[in-house]
Amino acid sequence: ETATVVGGSMGDDLIYLDYNATTPTDPRVADVMEPFLTGIFGNPSSNHRQGREARQAVDRARDQVARCLGAETDEIVFTSGGTEANNLAIQGLVAARGGGHVITSAVEHPAVLEVLLRMESTGVCDLTVVGVDAFGRVNPEAVEQSLRPDTVLVSLMLANNEVGTLQPVAEVGRRCRRGGVVLHTDAAQAVGKIPVNVDQLGVDLLSVAGHKLYAPKGIGALYVREGTDIEPFVCGAGHERGLRPGTENVLEIVGLGMACQLVERELKDEIPRLRSMRDRLRDLVADRVPDLVEHGHLEHRLPNTLSVAFPGAAASEILDRLEAQDVAASAGAACHAGGAVLSHVLWAMGVNAAIAQSTLRLSIGRFTSEDDLGIGADRIAAAVKACRNRKEKST
Amino acid sequence: ETATVVGGSMGDDLIYLDYNATTPTDPRVADVMEPFLTGIFGNPSSNHRQGREARQAVDRARDQVARCLGAETDEIVFTSGGTEANNLAIQGLVAARGGGHVITSAVEHPAVLEVLLRMESTGVCDLTVVGVDAFGRVNPEAVEQSLRPDTVLVSLMLANNEVGTLQPVAEVGRRCRRGGVVLHTDAAQAVGKIPVNVDQLGVDLLSVAGHKLYAPKGIGALYVREGTDIEPFVCGAGHERGLRPGTENVLEIVGLGMACQLVERELKDEIPRLRSMRDRLRDLVADRVPDLVEHGHLEHRLPNTLSVAFPGAAASEILDRLEAQDVAASAGAACHAGGAVLSHVLWAMGVNAAIAQSTLRLSIGRFTSEDDLGIGADRIAAAVKACRNRKEKST
Repeated sequence: ETATVVGGSMGDDLIYLDYNATTPTDPRVADVMEPFLTGIFGNPSSNHRQGREARQAVDRARDQVARCLGAETDEIVFTSGGTEANNLAIQGLVAARGGGHVITSAVEHPAVLEVLLRMESTGVCDLTVVGVDAFGRVNPEAVEQSLRPDTVLVSLMLANNEVGTLQPVAEVGRRCRRGGVVLHTDAAQAVGKIPVNVDQLGVDLLSVAGHKLYAPKGIGALYVREGTDIEPFVCGAGHERGLRPGTENVLEIVGLGMACQLVERELKDEIPRLRSMRDRLRDLVADRVPDLVEHGHLEHRLPNTLSVAFPGAAASEILDRLEAQDVAASAGAACHAGGAVLSHVLWAMGVNAAIAQSTLRLSIGRFTSEDDLGIGADRIAAAVKACRNRKEKST
Repeated sequence: ETATVVGGSMGDDLIYLDYNATTPTDPRVADVMEPFLTGIFGNPSSNHRQGREARQAVDRARDQVARCLGAETDEIVFTSGGTEANNLAIQGLVAARGGGHVITSAVEHPAVLEVLLRMESTGVCDLTVVGVDAFGRVNPEAVEQSLRPDTVLVSLMLANNEVGTLQPVAEVGRRCRRGGVVLHTDAAQAVGKIPVNVDQLGVDLLSVAGHKLYAPKGIGALYVREGTDIEPFVCGAGHERGLRPGTENVLEIVGLGMACQLVERELKDEIPRLRSMRDRLRDLVADRVPDLVEHGHLEHRLPNTLSVAFPGAAASEILDRLEAQDVAASAGAACHAGGAVLSHVLWAMGVNAAIAQSTLRLSIGRFTSEDDLGIGADRIAAAVKACRNRKEKST
């Protein structure tokens, strides 16, 4: 049984190579949500049948998310997405400790980095930002050397959204545990693409974003290891054990639950499929375009992500041409609202500005077909060649 | 064209008298959401066709919400619901002012009151809680008399969720403007039930909760008057003009937009219908059960809400019997997770504990039928009589 996406934006013509920006909702996820859109509507806090029906659906979904992460059911807190989960983890842990020192990496998503930079600038915490190597990877020893007696938290992403590099979270976890330091990982880009188990990683807090794993936008979860105290930063009527007040988003919680169940069931077979397709896409493009520069770690990398530079062609211009050819890709992270900001990830990896500005992120997923790869590579190659030719002529 | 709710929990047998807890999603709202569940999936921050398609849908919905409130489009910030909107308004305004004095009422929802009590207890702001009269209403002069030179914010709900009493927000607004004090109103329970216009109310900040107006749970909005500075309390990649980072919940934003458009179009006819049905429900119940006590203001009240005490019968017991008869109602607010907590609203109104514990909240809505009223009244009367009989026998 293979799922296919029909109708809407995912027509026959579109080559969607931007799964890291957002994934389509899996039809099987949409199917389980459907009754909650059109019929089941109770408030999970209501003590009558409609309320209980909604509450049971939320509980079932919580269990599905927990299983997918190797967690206990009551260690899962639903949030409005990855950004809120990261904020709750970081702001919540530091508030519970009354301040202290935090360590993070230079390649985090803004939903981690901006939170910590603001907290540092307002005096809520001290901050050390650890750099990365040319492959985008943090050295666990650099993290250990940054530990201070007052360090309360290390926040290190599991997988980078732009270049796909995986961080040595488990190794950092072992070093944190020795020092009694809490470890948070932003797993928004990892869950659904690589195996994620909270015990194997040794993390205390872990963020999930629904729309990166075939659930809708607007839902996420934070794993909070039992015994890890965090302060809520939204106040209200005590939902989600007081950690995240507000009437539960039942419709999308149900979707996230199913999305996690599908990941748990299918990821093992999906990983080699993605990896081989991603590598094929790279080979197809490389065959057609000379002088391609590949970013990221060749071993410790998401199986679906390809970050490639085409020296002599501006990414923004390549993307314009690709769009006219119904190919969707990205020049970096999609979450940076507007503007051609230079990637802080590539900058931290020491990539020079000219190369950075010619870098495309190509990310594939569950509904990518072999045809997409061939057609996509042809169109990418054509776009790059056209940009390079135009540039040569104009100089 | 009248909308009907089909399938799911809203079968023929159910008499749903708990619209203030949550509303079913209007089928016309579900219809406009459907394509975003099954097909349209772009990330509004993506600079390709899929992204633009999603961004345009979000913009259209923002416009629909703004029109419904008499606001400008760019004064609307989408949130994950009413609780987050209240938190953003209150925490955001006080943070932007660097502290100060805040005034609120004793009958606010926990998503306002708990926020402010925590802020006061952690020294973030000073707080004055103004009491209410026996009808649940604040005296605008009491608010004015509480104003201090360092008062930065008044937060006063538009309509009370438990007893339906409307607060004199416009009158308080005039007094705030004179003192240059920002006025926030939690309109979660008002939008969709009474006309709400930000200029007529004279408010600077106004919270909307989607699931109280036939949109799904998990979506809301905050109106922020141009020129009113608030600090975001979630940090990240700059969505929603930096006030509310996180990838937009496109699916439910589209639903909230349509829900607001329906309110704008239909509310004028709906208000007299609701009011006459609500009054008929009261009369039908009063005809069948002696000694009924009605709470709330008879004039300044939501048209759909009936708060009634049945002395000599415990609300929890009445509700158990009603549930067995497929009638859904509430003993107070649904948002208070678990437990038979005494209503802080009735307490503030000076209602004695015995009466408070025998109080039901009956709230009707768009899909309530004449039959619902008759059958509902019969079953409520039977349940109250059974409780009173049981009590007499046991004493």
